[in-house]
Amino acid sequence: MKCGIFDSGIGGLSVASSILKAKLFDEIIYYGDTARVPYGNKNESTIIRYSLEAMEFLKNFDIDFLVVACNTASATAVEELKKEASFPVVGVIEAGVKALENENKNSNILLIGTKRTVSSGKYEKLLKKKGFKNITSIATPLFVPLVEEGITDGKIVNDVFELYFKNIDREKIDIVILGCTHYPFLSHSLQKYFPNAKLIHSGQAIVELLKNEYNLTPKKSTSINLLASDDPEGLRIRAKEWLDIING
Amino acid sequence: MKCGIFDSGIGGLSVASSILKAKLFDEIIYYGDTARVPYGNKNESTIIRYSLEAMEFLKNFDIDFLVVACNTASATAVEELKKEASFPVVGVIEAGVKALENENKNSNILLIGTKRTVSSGKYEKLLKKKGFKNITSIATPLFVPLVEEGITDGKIVNDVFELYFKNIDREKIDIVILGCTHYPFLSHSLQKYFPNAKLIHSGQAIVELLKNEYNLTPKKSTSINLLASDDPEGLRIRAKEWLDIING
Repeated sequence: MKCGIFDSGIGGLSVASSILKAKLFDEIIYYGDTARVPYGNKNESTIIRYSLEAMEFLKNFDIDFLVVACNTASATAVEELKKEASFPVVGVIEAGVKALENENKNSNILLIGTKRTVSSGKYEKLLKKKGFKNITSIATPLFVPLVEEGITDGKIVNDVFELYFKNIDREKIDIVILGCTHYPFLSHSLQKYFPNAKLIHSGQAIVELLKNEYNLTPKKSTSINLLASDDPEGLRIRAKEWLDIING
Repeated sequence: MKCGIFDSGIGGLSVASSILKAKLFDEIIYYGDTARVPYGNKNESTIIRYSLEAMEFLKNFDIDFLVVACNTASATAVEELKKEASFPVVGVIEAGVKALENENKNSNILLIGTKRTVSSGKYEKLLKKKGFKNITSIATPLFVPLVEEGITDGKIVNDVFELYFKNIDREKIDIVILGCTHYPFLSHSLQKYFPNAKLIHSGQAIVELLKNEYNLTPKKSTSINLLASDDPEGLRIRAKEWLDIING
């Protein structure tokens, strides 16, 4: 059984890490569209076209599942991909929302993500449909460059938290949705900052969805094949560093 | 007389601002390739192709000069552009180096820029050719997202300076080259941090080069036309905020 994972770049490695650890597949083919990253600043029809092209490319590997590990593509292109695919397609946004199914509907939810993900309103719309009422969404665009620089705790991270969360009563947040695949690297610092919150990590949410909806069970081992539209060597170096670190 | 200015995105507005204030042209046509920004993570042949396409586009406006306001394109594509152009082409890197012509060759120079600009070694090569010996280059990739977030002074900026410049004796730096078009927004904070340094700003360097090498003199007024390959409205909003602020 083969799983294709598609992301605009390297952030989806945090999702790949969780799937890899859960051993739900014999093989994972990860494809990062690094030549055209980031998707966040592109218009809708372009993102749909790029996502369809990525799926076409992954079809060459006879995949049985497609995981869309990019929040922007999940917010924009998942419906189109499902229409065209002959295999199940699951996106990080629907998985993240699904992970909250058994939570109290009065929970105070904080959604953090890129500007594009937050302004799309996709998470909020799906959460409201499930009956959640208390949702605060905050775009935290500095988190990606901080993670890319390897800065995941300490003074700078705390200053940036205080900047973005200055109007939030942090003790009262019950759930924090990590609405960007780079954010799991900040889990440790975010958990300290929001001591009473449960953090929702896209990778873990995808694993739960695959287990529960498709009855996938662990294989003996899973191999991973890393591909990129530009600088695949850079992706592999990053994967070496990241796949071990990520708390999947 | 018309000047075309080309950048991968919006950062080149800091260069446009200086040229606008100096009134060296009747008209400026600014073109940001926002659909394909950033160039920094793309390979050389792609950057050359994109730069040639941008020049082709600007030719439609009958420009008399082309300013390459993007450090990555200046490091990679200026020679190719010069070969193809029937008008003068000037890049921010050669202008920045030119601006140091009368400085003491023993000056302690600090070059800051994106990872791509620093690793290209273009500035260092040109500076060494001019006889400078004491050059330190540091990639400061968090500066662009900070500026994009409007954070240009205060605690976070100082913490980030201390992170990047921890091995630098800041009192001893004589010259700081702002090797990225976003960095002039940090001039005020950088000047405080490097109290004895002269800051080299690409926009001002380009103006000096145009005045001295091409004998351009001020017109009565200059108009500016802002074009972008994606989201031109976003560029215009940014220009409204930025063109007034930038200390050109």
